[in-house]
This record gives sequence, C-alpha cells and structure tokens, in this order.
Amino acid sequence: MSYSPPDPNLLSLNTATVREKWNLRQMIDGCARHGICGISPWRDKLAELGAKEAAKRIRDRGLTVTGLCRGGMFPAADRKGRRAAIDDNLRAIDDAAMLEAKCLVLVVGGLPEGSKDLEGARTMVRDGIGEVLDHARSAGVPLAIEPLHPMYCADRACVNTMAHALDLCDELGAGLGIAVDAYHVWWDPGLKNQIERAGDKRLLAFHICDWLVPTMDLLTDRGMMGDGVIDLPLIRSWMEQAGYRGFHEVEIMSASNWWKRDADEVLATCRVRHQTAC
Amino acid sequence: MSYSPPDPNLLSLNTATVREKWNLRQMIDGCARHGICGISPWRDKLAELGAKEAAKRIRDRGLTVTGLCRGGMFPAADRKGRRAAIDDNLRAIDDAAMLEAKCLVLVVGGLPEGSKDLEGARTMVRDGIGEVLDHARSAGVPLAIEPLHPMYCADRACVNTMAHALDLCDELGAGLGIAVDAYHVWWDPGLKNQIERAGDKRLLAFHICDWLVPTMDLLTDRGMMGDGVIDLPLIRSWMEQAGYRGFHEVEIMSASNWWKRDADEVLATCRVRHQTAC
Repeated sequence: MSYSPPDPNLLSLNTATVREKWNLRQMIDGCARHGICGISPWRDKLAELGAKEAAKRIRDRGLTVTGLCRGGMFPAADRKGRRAAIDDNLRAIDDAAMLEAKCLVLVVGGLPEGSKDLEGARTMVRDGIGEVLDHARSAGVPLAIEPLHPMYCADRACVNTMAHALDLCDELGAGLGIAVDAYHVWWDPGLKNQIERAGDKRLLAFHICDWLVPTMDLLTDRGMMGDGVIDLPLIRSWMEQAGYRGFHEVEIMSASNWWKRDADEVLATCRVRHQTAC
Repeated sequence: MSYSPPDPNLLSLNTATVREKWNLRQMIDGCARHGICGISPWRDKLAELGAKEAAKRIRDRGLTVTGLCRGGMFPAADRKGRRAAIDDNLRAIDDAAMLEAKCLVLVVGGLPEGSKDLEGARTMVRDGIGEVLDHARSAGVPLAIEPLHPMYCADRACVNTMAHALDLCDELGAGLGIAVDAYHVWWDPGLKNQIERAGDKRLLAFHICDWLVPTMDLLTDRGMMGDGVIDLPLIRSWMEQAGYRGFHEVEIMSASNWWKRDADEVLATCRVRHQTAC
C-alpha cells in the first residue's frame, strides 16, 4: 500500500508535548504561528490562564479545541474522595464547554491507595462516569474514555483496552465515546476490530506519538512519530475506515528529549512528521 | 473470604530471582537448604553447569524442574534468523527433556529489527511454534506460551494476552499450553475467564511476584509478593478453580533491591511471603 500523507490541517497539539517550555498563551500562539489548527490543553495550564481568557484567545487564533485533558480519576478510598472526584469532573465539563472542546478526555483512575481490588476500582469508574454523564450531555460535552496502556493500570487508569472502554460505552449510553491513543493501544491484537466496533460516532479523538525501543521510563519516554515501532499510518487507516474524520493530536511526554528542546523546534518537527510518518 | 495459605511444598524458585549472586549449582543447593521443592533454571546458567550435570544435581536434591526458561524469540528479519531461532528452540526442548522439566517456557519474541509489522511478527510466532511442536511432543516436553505484559510487545513478546495465547493453542493443538505469570496478566479484565478457558491441561505454570507502585524500570523493578498491588490469592484461587495443581514459581527481576541482597535472605523471604501474600 503506498503512503498517502494526512491532511495537514488535521494536526493538533496536545500541550503536554511542550509543557516544560511554554505556558498556555505561548502554546496557543505557537500553534497559530506553525499552522497547527488544533490544540488540546491540560487543566493545570488552563487554570493559570483562566478558561474564559483561554477560550477567547483560542477562538481569536482560529484554533479547534480537540479535547480537554483531563477528567477521570474516579476511584478513591472513601466516599469523600469519590465525591471530590465527581465535583472535579463536573468543573472539567464546564471548562470543556467554555472551550467548545470536541471532548473531555477521561483518564479514569487506578487503584485507590492501599487497595488491590481491581474489580472494585473498575466499578467505581463505571459509577463515576455514570454520575457525571447527564451533566456532560446537558453541557454538550462528549466524554472520551481513554484506555491507557496496561502499564498504567495500578496508578492511572484501570481501563486498558478498547474493548473494556466500549463495554462501558454500551452500558452507559449516549454522550460517551473513546479517545484512541496509539501509544496505549497499538499492541492490542483486537485493535482493528474494536475501532470498527466503536464507529465514527464514538471515536472522539485520535492521539499520536511513538513507542521507543528501548523505553527507559514508563511515563515520560514517548517518541516523536516515526522514531519508534508503531505503524501509525495503518492505525490511521483503521480510524478512517471506521469513519473518523477528526484531528490527529500529538501528545509526547519526553523528559529526556523533546521536553528539553526549543518548543518551536518541537512544533516544526511535529508538522514534518505528521506528513511523513502518520 | 478468609485467607488460606498455599501448600509450602508448591513453592518454586525461578533462578532469575537470584541470578546476580549465585550460579546454578548454588541455586540448586540453596533451594534444597531452604526447603524449596521446585526450581526453574535459565539457559545461560544451565549452559555454565551443563544440562547433564544440572539434571543429576537437581535429581539428587529431590527438586522438581517446574520449567526451563526459555525458548521462543521466533521473529527475525530474514529466513536465516528464523532458522537459527528454530534450531535454538529444538536444543532448548532437548535440554528441557534432560531436566524432566514440566514445560519449556516460550517468550515468543517481538518485532524484528527495524520492523513495524506486528501482524507479521505474530504470524512468525505461530509458524515458529508450529515448526518445533512435533519435536516437543516426541520429547515429552509441553511448550508453555507465556503472554508477556503489553509493555514488552515491541522487543520481547508480541503475544500479550491469555486470549491470544489460547487462540494459538487452539490452532496448533496438543503439546501446547500457557505459563500464567501474574505480573504480566494481572491487569487483564478477561483474566478469570481465560484461566477457566485454558483449563488444567493447558495451565502449565504459574509465576508470581508483584507489581510495584511506582514501577521505576520496565524490566527490572518487580516486587516481592506482598509489596505491590496484585491480588495474588485471588489469581491463585482462579488457577485452582480451573484445576491447576502445580507449583507457584517466584520470578523477581529487581536490579535495585532483591538482586542486591544476600541470596539466602531472598529465598527465606520468598518462603515467608508465599505463606502470607500468595
């Protein structure tokens, strides 16, 4: 199959990619300067600038907010902790609405402190999403469960496969879909089928980066597209076959490499690699 | 459910646990000294002592060889590389037969150098196992596919779930089963069902250690049973419900902790934790 590069206007920047160098204002301006049409902010940076001010600046620059990172983190050791998580998710939904974000990304959370009860944590995730879903529907903010790589099961997200995430979507109904991050799901032998099962209505986001060999850190050693082993064009083709027409959001956490580089260089590299390796 | 400790005679030592301190002769003697009735050697240590000498010494000490680590590593960039892997697996089968090992553990291999063709690698795995299976059957050595954690998909094993491993067993037939390593599969929401699907005939080994939070290294930061988040008694109960009556093999790769400790202390700790956390 010959390689056909994606529409360059579908590139989006997940701001984690340059979080060590820029604040959100710089990120917004950087995207505009580099002709990157989408942006996905994280809430810590959003809080610094303020959601209202951020929304205005993003609109002024003509950018699409491809997602807000992140809600989730539902499991907690006690009722008070779970309630606090719900409240935080409700605020995140309001922020996402103000930004007119395509979705609120849910990193659902792992085991509560001291717990080994994985099934219990998964139940808390289902119940937590269920509690905030009505508010999300009213606000017009689709919730995107992001299945995280199984290496994050204990401490970040106990939903680790597309199949599990889609089971939750089936159970909880409208307003809920999936953020497909190639880094998290590339290994899954059922990936193609599950993307097809999701269908265009539930495919809410597509995140890209690369899996490096060797990977030196579980969290912050992601690669630039093309530097690793993920067949990104193949996964993109599955997304497109399922009807996905949304953005391709670059999210690279890279403490020893990309986070150290000049952020303009990082954005320029994303532009190039989007056209050669995705 | 009240905790009922396992039969202490079912403890086995995977020699990777003390590989930095002892040679195979010391490991064999150490198991006997600590009342550990099973042992699972790695081939590098076996080669140092010689399979024949090792087999005699293990028999003299009355130990059961719960597995030989390891065959596999089937994918390669060219025909010559794949042929070399087959030949190496045939030799591993002969060694396992000489040791009267309960199984030869297969770490099936990842992507060939420079390749992103995951489906192709998985086909090479299937074909490779298929090529050595007759020899294994003749030698009376069951082959145990070990599904490895998805974080090893690129470089160690592209079979990462029980379901995938059992699909291979279904396809290739008798003489093939699974090594269930809790570290690799604990996160899988389908684990209980897949253990049941495997059934006692195909459950060839049960490896134990623990998942630490945080995990600082992808390869060598495994925890002692009880120090992490895996509900080992629960997984053991699923194995037993499926009819598994074999050993519980401790395999801890721990560069910053257990590999540095006195090996007698490590074995003594394994004995205790087997009775309190498994």
